[in-house]
Amino acid sequence: MGLQYQESFTMPFDLCDVKHDAKLPLLLAYCLTVSGRQSKALNRSDGYVLDQFNLIWIITDYEVKITRLPVFNETITIKTEAVSYNKLFCYRQFYIYDQEGNQLADILTFFALMNPETRKVATIPEALVAPFESEFVKKMRRAFKPEALENPIEKDYHVRYFDIDMNGHVNNSKYLDWMYDSLGYDFLRHHNPVSLRLKYVKEVAPGGQITSRFVQDDLTTRHEIKSDGQVNAQAIIEWMRIE
Amino acid sequence: MGLQYQESFTMPFDLCDVKHDAKLPLLLAYCLTVSGRQSKALNRSDGYVLDQFNLIWIITDYEVKITRLPVFNETITIKTEAVSYNKLFCYRQFYIYDQEGNQLADILTFFALMNPETRKVATIPEALVAPFESEFVKKMRRAFKPEALENPIEKDYHVRYFDIDMNGHVNNSKYLDWMYDSLGYDFLRHHNPVSLRLKYVKEVAPGGQITSRFVQDDLTTRHEIKSDGQVNAQAIIEWMRIE
Repeated sequence: MGLQYQESFTMPFDLCDVKHDAKLPLLLAYCLTVSGRQSKALNRSDGYVLDQFNLIWIITDYEVKITRLPVFNETITIKTEAVSYNKLFCYRQFYIYDQEGNQLADILTFFALMNPETRKVATIPEALVAPFESEFVKKMRRAFKPEALENPIEKDYHVRYFDIDMNGHVNNSKYLDWMYDSLGYDFLRHHNPVSLRLKYVKEVAPGGQITSRFVQDDLTTRHEIKSDGQVNAQAIIEWMRIE
Repeated sequence: MGLQYQESFTMPFDLCDVKHDAKLPLLLAYCLTVSGRQSKALNRSDGYVLDQFNLIWIITDYEVKITRLPVFNETITIKTEAVSYNKLFCYRQFYIYDQEGNQLADILTFFALMNPETRKVATIPEALVAPFESEFVKKMRRAFKPEALENPIEKDYHVRYFDIDMNGHVNNSKYLDWMYDSLGYDFLRHHNPVSLRLKYVKEVAPGGQITSRFVQDDLTTRHEIKSDGQVNAQAIIEWMRIE
């Protein structure tokens, strides 16, 4: 078990969709700002990691279970903990609760460290993670291994200027945004996500074009983001129908 | 002079672009949440206005002057005041200051009231605006009257699911987003806005496609958003070159 950290947060207008529910890509991005503040409080900010170790954190996988999406103006509590790590991955858990303490979502993220020049993944230095009091575990968690999609529906997207974040890369949240959007207004208006597994494979370069591809099997959709003939991200989402 | 209201705010990662500067469309959207909290504190929330008067606020014009954009992690103060109103418009001012009290931006917004069913503009009820202590002025301010663009450069955009806000409409901030994006990564990477005049003409319907058109004359760009043969929004932006 790692050190726990939590913050309360009231859902603002801009984080909510036409149904008044949290926009999932932005909610996941917000969770990362919460763990960023834990890291900063433990003197392990992104700036420190870059200065001292010449490394940056990347996210490789999300595993999300959703009981109910937070809604507009609702005050939620986001609790996070860097649960465990092995040679190559840190596993960080987020839990979202409503004001009565009911769990709304359970989000597991896989982090890895990368050298920003060579773009190579690095072994996790013990000194970097020690303050989080995470457990060292030898075993790797089984990661999501999706198959290629057959006869997907495709939609092209141009990478927009504001999709690029301060790191000069397409922001993580955009991949899920493109996956969502390919499903169309009518589907999204009448379905909410129950679970999501998302894998980042390769960064999308700024300024290019991507294709968001999906296949649907009843309440399950499987997704791929591709550019220049390569897979950039893959996901599987389970949905529930709402009125 | 109206009642003044102010809040401090530290610029988060998601509101900043690749240059570490505030994303202007999101900064303007954030200012509206500040005035929304003033309205709520004065018992004139959007919900109250709809319940009691069957009206909603719309923005028709922005006039923005920028000395310097706020940057990532900078704590700014946003001061706002509903300065004056006449039969059809309320004029609200925002000022953004840095921590030393230097003014970074001056933002004037024109608000009008609309009946959400008939989509018709309504006369401003005295009882609605009284708590803001704004001055009644007979005279209308001269609004921005742009000419049609000749031989513009055009770029098409699909209206995305997450562009639609809780009101079921394309969020105000998206129009400026489309205008910006049409200028391309290289231009935006090396220019910052100095002034902006933006006029909303007609809402974009959800689910459609828009064309973002612009002409450039040195450091001035003029913009139009069009859909279904109609103009939806127009703007003129002056830029300064940065390294």
